[in-house]
Amino acid sequence: MTPAPHSVRSPARRSGRRPGDSGTREQILAAARDLFGATGYGATTIRAVARRAGVDPALVHHYFGTKSGLFTAALELPADPSELMPGLVAQGLDGLGERVVRTFLGIWDGTPGQGPLLALLRSAVASEAAAALLRDVLGQVFLRPLTAAASPDRPALRASLVASQLVGLAVGRYVVRIDPLASAGPDELAPALGATVDRYLLGPLDRPA
Amino acid sequence: MTPAPHSVRSPARRSGRRPGDSGTREQILAAARDLFGATGYGATTIRAVARRAGVDPALVHHYFGTKSGLFTAALELPADPSELMPGLVAQGLDGLGERVVRTFLGIWDGTPGQGPLLALLRSAVASEAAAALLRDVLGQVFLRPLTAAASPDRPALRASLVASQLVGLAVGRYVVRIDPLASAGPDELAPALGATVDRYLLGPLDRPA
Repeated sequence: MTPAPHSVRSPARRSGRRPGDSGTREQILAAARDLFGATGYGATTIRAVARRAGVDPALVHHYFGTKSGLFTAALELPADPSELMPGLVAQGLDGLGERVVRTFLGIWDGTPGQGPLLALLRSAVASEAAAALLRDVLGQVFLRPLTAAASPDRPALRASLVASQLVGLAVGRYVVRIDPLASAGPDELAPALGATVDRYLLGPLDRPA
Repeated sequence: MTPAPHSVRSPARRSGRRPGDSGTREQILAAARDLFGATGYGATTIRAVARRAGVDPALVHHYFGTKSGLFTAALELPADPSELMPGLVAQGLDGLGERVVRTFLGIWDGTPGQGPLLALLRSAVASEAAAALLRDVLGQVFLRPLTAAASPDRPALRASLVASQLVGLAVGRYVVRIDPLASAGPDELAPALGATVDRYLLGPLDRPA
């Protein structure tokens, strides 16, 4: 959480901060982190974040667009999870699993030291409040489009199975660093893991008789 | 780490402790925890644990059998991982994945609050030393029999893919508690996840052309 550099424009204004002031932006992000952490993702509103930061809700929308955009910025995530998954699903079901895994690996591998993602995962494992936040975010922005794309036979279970494999990939590759999972390239991993994602979403869940 | 109750037998002996003294047993376990934590699983020997505890190596063998048995007792794990996996593999390849998942779920679900297992997982995610220990144990006692049972096309990668799914199952079900993964029963989960384990071990890793 490095503070944003302060605005170099004139500091003398009636309210002490104003639209366009990077201090205001940082204040909104701090309020968002507090509220997401305290009340979870679903219960946090743009309006409540604005009130806590002492700004107009329109300013929050102006800076961050949606609640998901605000969450992405507050946690310094490399991509907005609410935009990724629907985009992948929109490209069709053929090869969906491999695209999901490639995108997942691209984001994690492309984030130096896996900084904010690893921090989110570590805190979710260490504290129940952070686990509740991750559970909430996964449910609202990540699992929902997967559930919608899944076979009508137990779609929510299917989406949570996908989540289990992706969480295990993150922990195994970037935290525990099990080899050769940790050293393998995306071209090797994406087909192997993508077929699992495809089967969880669309294939038979029960053992063939 | 609750201390073992002290022996009620006469305390007056030359060395101050002796074989059969539950204080000695606890001393060996404390030495084992120190050494496993400091040097990892592979580099820790029964002899070094005995030296640190100030007892004869034969006494360590007497109490705990193998190094893996000592590790199991030191971390208060509900089962010795070095005995589980070879036993499952020995029952044959047919249905192996489902047996692996059922055994995994049985151990986790059967451990109240998932105490020591969850502690091991939490510390592995929080600290690099604990992650190194888990990586080492996984490699030496868990992945080795899976690698031996896997198809000759990249067997070590296959075993590590299995580990990624099981780690993700543990984190998703018991830590983040993603529903319905967290609430589903073993009869629903074991076939769905077992088929993944079977494919990782024996099936095609690449996408069919």
